Amino acid sequence: MSNIYEKGLDKNPANYETLTPISFLLRAAQLYPDKTAIIYADELWTWKEFFLLCKKVASALKKSGVKRGDTVAAVLPNVPAMMVLHFAVPMIGAVFNAINIRLDSKTIRFILEHGESKVLFTDREFSGAVKLAIEGLDDLLVIDVEDNNFHSGENIGSISYETFSDQGSADFRFSLPSDEWDAMSLNYTSGTTGDPKGVVYHHRGAYLNAANNALTWEMGLYPRYLWTLPMFHCNGWCFPWTLAAVGGAAICIRQVRDKDIFEAFKKHDVTHFCGAPVVLNTLLNASEADRSDLKKGIRVMTAGAAPPASVIQGMENLGFDVIQVYGLTETYGPMIVSEWREEWNCLSAEERSKLKARQGIQSVMAGSMIVADPETLEPIPWDGETKGEVFMRGNIVMKGYLKNLKTTKKAFAGGWFHSGDIAVCHPDGYIEIKDRSKDIIISGGENISSIEIEAILFGHPKILEAAVVAKSDEKWGEHPCAFISLKDGESLTKEDITDFCRERMAGFKVPKTVIFQELEKTSTGKVQKFRLREIAEKYLSN
Amino acid sequence: MSNIYEKGLDKNPANYETLTPISFLLRAAQLYPDKTAIIYADELWTWKEFFLLCKKVASALKKSGVKRGDTVAAVLPNVPAMMVLHFAVPMIGAVFNAINIRLDSKTIRFILEHGESKVLFTDREFSGAVKLAIEGLDDLLVIDVEDNNFHSGENIGSISYETFSDQGSADFRFSLPSDEWDAMSLNYTSGTTGDPKGVVYHHRGAYLNAANNALTWEMGLYPRYLWTLPMFHCNGWCFPWTLAAVGGAAICIRQVRDKDIFEAFKKHDVTHFCGAPVVLNTLLNASEADRSDLKKGIRVMTAGAAPPASVIQGMENLGFDVIQVYGLTETYGPMIVSEWREEWNCLSAEERSKLKARQGIQSVMAGSMIVADPETLEPIPWDGETKGEVFMRGNIVMKGYLKNLKTTKKAFAGGWFHSGDIAVCHPDGYIEIKDRSKDIIISGGENISSIEIEAILFGHPKILEAAVVAKSDEKWGEHPCAFISLKDGESLTKEDITDFCRERMAGFKVPKTVIFQELEKTSTGKVQKFRLREIAEKYLSN
Repeated sequence: MSNIYEKGLDKNPANYETLTPISFLLRAAQLYPDKTAIIYADELWTWKEFFLLCKKVASALKKSGVKRGDTVAAVLPNVPAMMVLHFAVPMIGAVFNAINIRLDSKTIRFILEHGESKVLFTDREFSGAVKLAIEGLDDLLVIDVEDNNFHSGENIGSISYETFSDQGSADFRFSLPSDEWDAMSLNYTSGTTGDPKGVVYHHRGAYLNAANNALTWEMGLYPRYLWTLPMFHCNGWCFPWTLAAVGGAAICIRQVRDKDIFEAFKKHDVTHFCGAPVVLNTLLNASEADRSDLKKGIRVMTAGAAPPASVIQGMENLGFDVIQVYGLTETYGPMIVSEWREEWNCLSAEERSKLKARQGIQSVMAGSMIVADPETLEPIPWDGETKGEVFMRGNIVMKGYLKNLKTTKKAFAGGWFHSGDIAVCHPDGYIEIKDRSKDIIISGGENISSIEIEAILFGHPKILEAAVVAKSDEKWGEHPCAFISLKDGESLTKEDITDFCRERMAGFKVPKTVIFQELEKTSTGKVQKFRLREIAEKYLSN
Repeated sequence: MSNIYEKGLDKNPANYETLTPISFLLRAAQLYPDKTAIIYADELWTWKEFFLLCKKVASALKKSGVKRGDTVAAVLPNVPAMMVLHFAVPMIGAVFNAINIRLDSKTIRFILEHGESKVLFTDREFSGAVKLAIEGLDDLLVIDVEDNNFHSGENIGSISYETFSDQGSADFRFSLPSDEWDAMSLNYTSGTTGDPKGVVYHHRGAYLNAANNALTWEMGLYPRYLWTLPMFHCNGWCFPWTLAAVGGAAICIRQVRDKDIFEAFKKHDVTHFCGAPVVLNTLLNASEADRSDLKKGIRVMTAGAAPPASVIQGMENLGFDVIQVYGLTETYGPMIVSEWREEWNCLSAEERSKLKARQGIQSVMAGSMIVADPETLEPIPWDGETKGEVFMRGNIVMKGYLKNLKTTKKAFAGGWFHSGDIAVCHPDGYIEIKDRSKDIIISGGENISSIEIEAILFGHPKILEAAVVAKSDEKWGEHPCAFISLKDGESLTKEDITDFCRERMAGFKVPKTVIFQELEKTSTGKVQKFRLREIAEKYLSN
């Protein structure tokens, strides 16, 4: 049945354009040409210079044969090239895969092969792992991003970033994607089945979440944003694109160390930064000297694990303005925000910190979130007590997992994304994460799969059974704790276990606590992880 | 050619939802249930109550036979029902047409017939014009929105708003539109050819501009917004939906009078309001008594005609924080914003007012804008001198004009929306409107078609020729100025002309200045309007 609005009112170039964060860069280059885009060490790029650089790199990539739908990967710290690639790669319709620099060579290789990367940008610092990872990948173009501020390691690529980008042209003409549903980035996350899963983002979601960040955080114009959050985490929670939208300055630092952070705060008049609670902890435990003369009112957005109320209160005592957000790689980073209510201003510092320690409500452009029974999807009562799983839907939920139809279907069963996280919902609609149903440990903002560690432990000839759970950690939030039962007559020490692991996985995944005991099981033979977590919590670190 | 991202990553209910401002209401009702949504006289509705009311009205409309793609019209001042209809009508997929309350009966009838309205909500105050307008429209359901705060006029409908909405259910279940490109509102604008044109908005554009308002104006949470801007202007520049996004309170007043405005400022702790420069002028010229005890820092967004720098400076002297925006009905209201630059803070008050009097740059989610040669679409240099026409494109440009393919095509020729406004572009990219190529006069924020007035004047038996142009007006910004040449031997006074007009058009369109003289023409016989405007400016009002 047709109506009067269905005729002569079609899409055309004047009234429809695809939502893509690249449009924020075009606007910034046009309207904030002389405003600072990036600062790194002694170098500075304006938004106009940054745009020209992005076009050079984009055209060089195109010249080298990269096509729409190809993957371009990077193993880079938060250097300017990393931010350039967030724009240059999608400019030619390719998909950017920022790989966690802390991963071991085997996992990096898995990711490069699974994502079918055509190009890899890398940094001397990670040449050890990356060199092993790329062995025999003869079709992969490897580009060395040389950094004068870092001196060890070796160049392992066939060309330097500078020479490569000089092959491109700053006059490069490109088009925005014709479909906003097109993939624009790929972010691997620890899978519960061992192998990492490739989370795919599209232009539409990246655009909306980038704008949503600015709106939710009320960033205003020209914020000065310090990159403490790795850009390889959910594309830096979409902040490379947010900064283009608000004409902000990105202050890059290579190492997220307390000294460097405080120095940057002062030298660059930082107004905003993001980071896992471990970064907040680092700042709290810095020396008095470092913390001296700190400007009040620097705003920090934290997520990646629930920060204890005491950490929030400590930060606020230092003069920081803390906001907690919550999300997953699958939701482009932050989706839920612990939005502050004016009526809470009158509460005590302690009460306020407790409220801030709750994960919050869906942010304004985020879509919907419910806490519900995982079987029936029936929402649980908002009583602050009943537990349920957190489910999300909307435009900042991923396209799906790359080449993984089965897991994608499971993740979206019933028309909601299954976060795997367990929460209560308070009477005001704010959720508080209580547990994770997935076997993920979050340590220092990194997701670690307990099942991946278990699989490796099971490979030890003397180990009968192994189970790995999260144990609270004052510094890292959590760390992996391994429960081990040995085969009859065998013996192993904690050091044997950690040495064995260190050879087979990235350092941050190695269990910090090892408990030798028989594994309690249900009548059907299932290990009761919640019981093990209780034991782990009470266990004094060995 | 297919790539790895084109398989198994499809849209589904978990990762895709249509952009629609109705989602902001769902969120507000869920997360700000007890926050104030509307205040009018002695009544107050919370966001939860407002949502229930919207659902009641939506379901009553559905029961009465309104279907997806049907038009529902209103001739209403800024009363709560007007804001309810902004949500209730699109909730059932229908299209909301808010009609200018100042129009004459003939124009209202044209709009009702052209838009094929099924339902009309109206108010006693306008019963004179509306009664004539609906004569013989037997299929139109007319609903009286009764207002205890207004006593003259008569009810002309078949049912009252209250009785009607009681036929609906607050438990009404509705779905969001399945296509975000679906029409959601219809706004008539003066056409250059006389008949008004029906500008059609879609859900996607309304969503994006509603969010864009909050972002551009940095509204924060819980603003207290005074409705001085009529909601029948571009749906109140999308602010009914913006307020739902930020949990704001809408303070409704029936009459936009200085006394009422100042009273509302004080009584309701207003933080934001919008209005044409005429509203600012009214406030500037209010009595000292009214202006006393005014809180500093109330933020006002103005548009609809270029406000003189002196008005901006006057408002700032009173403690208001003024931001100018620019747009057209065709761009959902504001698209261009006179974004403030921190480097201007050090300038003198006069210099700052001058900068604020420029229309500005495209706002962050607005898409693209160029000032270009109207023939070649080649952008003009950013020199602050060369004039060109303003062209826009992007997601907050209308779907098109309803049932008007020819004009729609013309408006979108070359892939840009032709604003018809003439501007210069300053070296920093900020545009400044210099003239209008279309024959539109903007008086008190209302668009008036000079051609419509001319057509009526030509109908006078004693008039040989007539031309109408804009003349600057201290109070109204501009007013229509008529140039008249009489037939041989005839004579007419200014009063004859205005009396003649008053019977045939809405009062605000009647020429305030009448100049009797021969009309200068080009060699090809075209009236040179720019010359007439020069004469009009110098002419002392008669």
